[in-house]
Amino acid sequence: MSSEAAFIDSLRALATDSAARGLLDDAAALTVGGETLVLTHDMIAEGVHYLPDDPPADVAWKLVAVNLSDLAAKGARPIGALLGFSLGEESWDRAFAEGLGPALAAFGMPLLGGDTVALPAGAPRVLGLTALGRAGPIVPSRAGAVPGDRLWVSGSIGDAGAGLKLLREGKDEPAALIERYRNPRPRLQAGQRLAGLVSAMMDVSDGLLIDAARLAAASRCGSAIRLDWLPLSTALLDLGGDDRATRLAAASAGDDYELLFAAPPDRTSAIEALADELGLPLSTIGQCEPGTGLRLLDGDMPVPLPERLGFEHG
Amino acid sequence: MSSEAAFIDSLRALATDSAARGLLDDAAALTVGGETLVLTHDMIAEGVHYLPDDPPADVAWKLVAVNLSDLAAKGARPIGALLGFSLGEESWDRAFAEGLGPALAAFGMPLLGGDTVALPAGAPRVLGLTALGRAGPIVPSRAGAVPGDRLWVSGSIGDAGAGLKLLREGKDEPAALIERYRNPRPRLQAGQRLAGLVSAMMDVSDGLLIDAARLAAASRCGSAIRLDWLPLSTALLDLGGDDRATRLAAASAGDDYELLFAAPPDRTSAIEALADELGLPLSTIGQCEPGTGLRLLDGDMPVPLPERLGFEHG
Repeated sequence: MSSEAAFIDSLRALATDSAARGLLDDAAALTVGGETLVLTHDMIAEGVHYLPDDPPADVAWKLVAVNLSDLAAKGARPIGALLGFSLGEESWDRAFAEGLGPALAAFGMPLLGGDTVALPAGAPRVLGLTALGRAGPIVPSRAGAVPGDRLWVSGSIGDAGAGLKLLREGKDEPAALIERYRNPRPRLQAGQRLAGLVSAMMDVSDGLLIDAARLAAASRCGSAIRLDWLPLSTALLDLGGDDRATRLAAASAGDDYELLFAAPPDRTSAIEALADELGLPLSTIGQCEPGTGLRLLDGDMPVPLPERLGFEHG
Repeated sequence: MSSEAAFIDSLRALATDSAARGLLDDAAALTVGGETLVLTHDMIAEGVHYLPDDPPADVAWKLVAVNLSDLAAKGARPIGALLGFSLGEESWDRAFAEGLGPALAAFGMPLLGGDTVALPAGAPRVLGLTALGRAGPIVPSRAGAVPGDRLWVSGSIGDAGAGLKLLREGKDEPAALIERYRNPRPRLQAGQRLAGLVSAMMDVSDGLLIDAARLAAASRCGSAIRLDWLPLSTALLDLGGDDRATRLAAASAGDDYELLFAAPPDRTSAIEALADELGLPLSTIGQCEPGTGLRLLDGDMPVPLPERLGFEHG
């Protein structure tokens, strides 16, 4: 067990309230005055979750988006945020604040409070956001999938990972891929509409394969993913070519902030109708199976799992 | 204006929801399903808010306590916390988790969620906690005091500041002062009971004088503080002697996590009865006045304000 896994295990012993969902979900779900609040806190650190020369307004956007993606996966509507901000170079701070406004406004989320700290000189910034949302009547968890359910994903997979790789190589094109890395779009509306249709839902943040394995493990079932069914964007296919290496890289890259969900086969037409209505692709990528573990297929051919399914850190 | 003040000003423009209280209060107050939630997020950073060789369990305690002190000042009962944790040296992490359990349990606050991040090697840790509380029928703000109100403070002032000074000098006695620095006790019960009696309330975190100036400014009145009325502990008086220097240091030291509040004179007997009932000193330290600004008195003698009223950072 990694030291991070051991640490999270020791926290789990403290998270005995049912609202904590055993620290196994994207967010907590707390009942207050007859309503259900969805609560999440994600941090991003300079040099780990964003690049030091990423534009500060994009970092603000990402901080908001990664937290809202957790709300989206629970079908919640944003109601407010608390910011934890490490102060640093003044013009960077200013540009961050200038970017935070439009990011919050884009999702109708008011800033409710927070804290600023001045770190010792040279320390990498650590930024945190707590996002609160109001849930609908059903708050999907990661744990409700059953064998026979289809697995679905929203949008396209692998674009952000390709964008990050390009930036690390000093390239800034194709812009569509860079944009997906810097300005992820949390699928709030889709999440709200899907909440009543799915048996389990989470967001894809660490990589499709590792997150699919987590959903299946939480649901105590196995899963089979069809590499050839993964929705890849034209920009990604143009860059990498439509081969197995491109598909494996996309499936394990992370930073997608798409929705991954399981649903019984009889929900298929309702999900397809929703995709049409929202103008957002919702694609079947496999299914839940009896047993445990993750199987990967390309057509009917079994494919060995890559050594790395995604980011192991949470 | 400092760059931090400018940054917070720019955030204030985004905090237009009334629940944010203009970012001028200790916490946000959000109405959900007919109840009022109190929400706060405070961060502590290694080398800034705690010493690198402070015991990890005490750091966990402090992270919990500083956030609960904000809830106490709004009269709220804790209902849950989200943790933002920077991973580092494994045995430190383990000792932190072992201390977090008792700290949360001491205040009946379950852990609901959070996030862990691995920072680049050598980066100082940044720890954040979001605390949620359920408010009573009245949520005192900093802004309700009027001229003629008495100013009060709970417990004793200056102990934690003296404890920090001792630690920085390599001393670990008197234990009572070290303990006040490392294990502050948020005044939750007192805050809940005082909420209906006060005209304004906040916690003392940055220094009594600077925080009293903030309460008066938020209330658009002036204030006069009587140095000779400040409640100082026997341990502090034994260490420093009962002179003006000791009292000025205590009033500007910070880390007290006591309650500072204003109340009309006709509430005096109710407040004194509450102090007796709780076994917690509640001491008059001055009054609110017409006008603006802070006056300092020793008996009837005006005393010049010290150059530094407390910590300027939030």
